[in-house]
Amino acid sequence: MKTAAKKSSSKVLCVLYDDPVNGRPASYPRENIPKLKKYPGGQTLPAPNAIDFTPGELLGSVSGELGLRAFLEKGGHKFVVTSDKEGPKSAFEKELPDADIVISQPFWPAYLTAERIAKAPKLKLAITAGIGSDHVDLEAAIARGITVVEVTYCNSISVAEHAVMQILALVRNYIPSYEWVIKKGWNIADCVERAYDIEGMNVGTVAAGRIGLAVLKRMRPFDVRLHYFDKHRLPKSVEKELGLTYHPNVESLVRACDVVSIHCPLHHETEGLFNDTLLAKMKRGSYIVNTARGAICDRDAIVRALKSGRLAGYAGDVWFPQPPPKDHPWRTMPHHGMTPHVSGTTLSAQARYAAGVREILECWFAGRPIRNEYLIVDGGKLAGAGAHSYTRGQIKSAR
Amino acid sequence: MKTAAKKSSSKVLCVLYDDPVNGRPASYPRENIPKLKKYPGGQTLPAPNAIDFTPGELLGSVSGELGLRAFLEKGGHKFVVTSDKEGPKSAFEKELPDADIVISQPFWPAYLTAERIAKAPKLKLAITAGIGSDHVDLEAAIARGITVVEVTYCNSISVAEHAVMQILALVRNYIPSYEWVIKKGWNIADCVERAYDIEGMNVGTVAAGRIGLAVLKRMRPFDVRLHYFDKHRLPKSVEKELGLTYHPNVESLVRACDVVSIHCPLHHETEGLFNDTLLAKMKRGSYIVNTARGAICDRDAIVRALKSGRLAGYAGDVWFPQPPPKDHPWRTMPHHGMTPHVSGTTLSAQARYAAGVREILECWFAGRPIRNEYLIVDGGKLAGAGAHSYTRGQIKSAR
Repeated sequence: MKTAAKKSSSKVLCVLYDDPVNGRPASYPRENIPKLKKYPGGQTLPAPNAIDFTPGELLGSVSGELGLRAFLEKGGHKFVVTSDKEGPKSAFEKELPDADIVISQPFWPAYLTAERIAKAPKLKLAITAGIGSDHVDLEAAIARGITVVEVTYCNSISVAEHAVMQILALVRNYIPSYEWVIKKGWNIADCVERAYDIEGMNVGTVAAGRIGLAVLKRMRPFDVRLHYFDKHRLPKSVEKELGLTYHPNVESLVRACDVVSIHCPLHHETEGLFNDTLLAKMKRGSYIVNTARGAICDRDAIVRALKSGRLAGYAGDVWFPQPPPKDHPWRTMPHHGMTPHVSGTTLSAQARYAAGVREILECWFAGRPIRNEYLIVDGGKLAGAGAHSYTRGQIKSAR
Repeated sequence: MKTAAKKSSSKVLCVLYDDPVNGRPASYPRENIPKLKKYPGGQTLPAPNAIDFTPGELLGSVSGELGLRAFLEKGGHKFVVTSDKEGPKSAFEKELPDADIVISQPFWPAYLTAERIAKAPKLKLAITAGIGSDHVDLEAAIARGITVVEVTYCNSISVAEHAVMQILALVRNYIPSYEWVIKKGWNIADCVERAYDIEGMNVGTVAAGRIGLAVLKRMRPFDVRLHYFDKHRLPKSVEKELGLTYHPNVESLVRACDVVSIHCPLHHETEGLFNDTLLAKMKRGSYIVNTARGAICDRDAIVRALKSGRLAGYAGDVWFPQPPPKDHPWRTMPHHGMTPHVSGTTLSAQARYAAGVREILECWFAGRPIRNEYLIVDGGKLAGAGAHSYTRGQIKSAR
């Protein structure tokens, strides 16, 4: 594994989401977050030498600075944090030309297009504070020898919990029922004409990596029939333990399922996967939850399927672009239960990815190898987690 | 087990919730509901000789009539269905004096108070189309020799699913995040300053009967620490399998937990259980989900705890009274995620309880015993499921 040689001073450009509205300080309902011992399966948690933040506080927004300022400035580095990321006049583009390291988050992605990479001759390291590096043009990074890393596993369980929540919320018609409370009604029939138990339904995941498998495990006690498709088939022992039906392709999966939860990365083979053609193969009244990437679904095909009744509901937290414009049709389409891209940036997740970014930077500056499981692109090729999950080729929506 | 002798003609008075607003016919997103083989643990599903309805359609509202009209009229019985249940001028009170059988649902409870029972000299059988007979004055029913039955297990899993959904929704701050989508925003920090993963938290149930145990089982793969209190301790093997910590009383439970889900029946010992005193023993920033009965919680103490921050969130679907008035403070208190009382009346549950009521009526008219597990009061005493779950004594809120 290749890393940069130790440098005396780097410019670190960090793009984070905005603070709470009107500069209001964050308010926390709880005093702490649970301490975990390790990730499921045994991968160790991020292990920086030290942290300068309080786990459970807001780290992913501009004022939180991922808890990195003291560490970086003590090391003699320049640290620039902004939320201003769109267009040639943005702070991001202005600061990019002499940046050595870029840090960005999937929730507020600073799209590192080929054009932008061309404008950043010193750029050697792109860190995703989270999981999913599709906002980086990986082909351009490969060509330029830029190392792309992410904090693998830091928020996989966070996303899995969100997906299970939204599966239940769609099938049980949660939010429309909540709204009758707010509207001062007690319209049971109006609430329940679209409300079902999930018990006995067929529930499947597209991909069964860390997140997909965590979703399947969590759905198991609901007495549903579980299905999955993945390029890499799970061990027979896992299939047997969870009662999984394997499908060799997505078409087969969606034909069998009442609920489909999407957990594959975005690359050129998955971009636009859920289009009119695939949606037409789903059962009438199916549900989709997509906490992977918005561009895996054809925006307008989803709207059409909800209007025609092919889909009974759509939820998730990923959009394209991010943030979506005010007139993005997913904000107003019928029977949706979407959130902004928040599943992987709970206060719990933030503490882990802030620690993971710190660990990565400590390694980078010391010339020590970055963990293999964090690598997406290294040494001019897909590497580590990237070699497992991604395929080469251009993503249109990453531009 | 005592049942009434066969009668040539009975008057069956059935109180159901209203149809969809403005007489709109129900619209169903799906073509059917899954077929289940049995309940968890082996209890058989309702087994009437026949049904006259399509499972998956709206049966619990006035026009649905629980699918009973053809059966009852063919048997020579009089069948009156109404949603008008409140006050002396209601259809319910007008029809009650010569009713032999009353059918009601927890979602739209026709409160069978001692006063009303006194006005119904012919009443011999009170059926709950669902679970929970606290809307019947059981002491008065015992005194009068009225048999009280419910369709045990018909919607236990429905309620458990709802509770798990609402636990996740509170901890992950789902609905406020959804609302930022609707408000055209992308306010990640505003969404997540109250959003956590549930992983690693302490989650407990008050009671671990059919519903409570189903909740514990469903929470198990979330890698939480599970706790419960119940008058009847679970077998050691179940405690071990699920990693449960048993608490000998509710105070001990709430001190240990971040999330408490309530699954005990309402009787005089549980009425008002969650009052200021008990809430003061909870950790700051705890969550309560109550899908049992509204009156188990002190209405105003809950509001105070949400305002003070003792509670970080409250959800559930049960209220007192039902329907709650437009100015019921739970509609507008902060950080709630409540629904009307719908968890046990999904389209899936309706098919089961409609079949269960049909089974009970078939038994009753034929002079055959009603299943022991359906009995709450029989032969002038608590019986069957009632003897397991209820205690003698007056409930104030049932009046």
